[in-house]
Amino acid sequence: MLRRVDHVALAVSDLDASIEHYQRVWGLTLSHREVVAEQGVEEAMFRLGDTYLQLVAPLSRDTPAGRFIERRGEGLHHIAYEVEGIEAALASAREHQLVLVDQEPRRGSRNTRVAFVHPRTNHGVLVELVEIPPDPADPRSIP
Amino acid sequence: MLRRVDHVALAVSDLDASIEHYQRVWGLTLSHREVVAEQGVEEAMFRLGDTYLQLVAPLSRDTPAGRFIERRGEGLHHIAYEVEGIEAALASAREHQLVLVDQEPRRGSRNTRVAFVHPRTNHGVLVELVEIPPDPADPRSIP
Repeated sequence: MLRRVDHVALAVSDLDASIEHYQRVWGLTLSHREVVAEQGVEEAMFRLGDTYLQLVAPLSRDTPAGRFIERRGEGLHHIAYEVEGIEAALASAREHQLVLVDQEPRRGSRNTRVAFVHPRTNHGVLVELVEIPPDPADPRSIP
Repeated sequence: MLRRVDHVALAVSDLDASIEHYQRVWGLTLSHREVVAEQGVEEAMFRLGDTYLQLVAPLSRDTPAGRFIERRGEGLHHIAYEVEGIEAALASAREHQLVLVDQEPRRGSRNTRVAFVHPRTNHGVLVELVEIPPDPADPRSIP
């Protein structure tokens, strides 16, 4: 069901400062940056092998990412797996009695369709299922 | 400096139960399992694309992984990056004023050489630097 790790997401307070840190200290090159208003975050992505490192900064304190940082501080936030068909993946998760955050897919960054699975029934790990569109909106920004 | 994400590590209380969960619910195939006594853990690895998902279970409560789970519960624990030369990577981290957990490389699973970087100066993220040996001890277990 899982094809690969699409990205590993890190919650950060200050997106610009964190991008600068990952460029200067770890030598990564920014490949994508986008506000996802529906999720209350701004995201930045760095390509690394066949996956991405994603920085996620809350647009305000009263968002899931904002509350996460207030409660636990900056750090590892979730892991995202690419799946082939997101409806089938969601149905399978439901069959296996996983608690879903999203009952239906919603829009993610890069024109993906995504759905989150709650950490409660997944050994404490928040999971994002990602269906990559055949023709992303702006492929120039996703080398 | 970073070549790829070698693995994403998830702290779990019960390794057998968690392996069963990742096989049954997520359809993954176990590729490696090993006790790393020096780190006080038993690890299990599942290959996913060009990276691994790693489950890390403490051998006792009085270990770093045991204390992590007591404090924060099961969940995302660290991210491991493959580097080409671990001495050079450690020197670079030191130059960039990162707080190091390990001043010198130590033995990791799969005959790797590893060193951890403390989350304090890395936006809350514990990082493992991994140097893969040219000829792993038991390649049959690492497809």
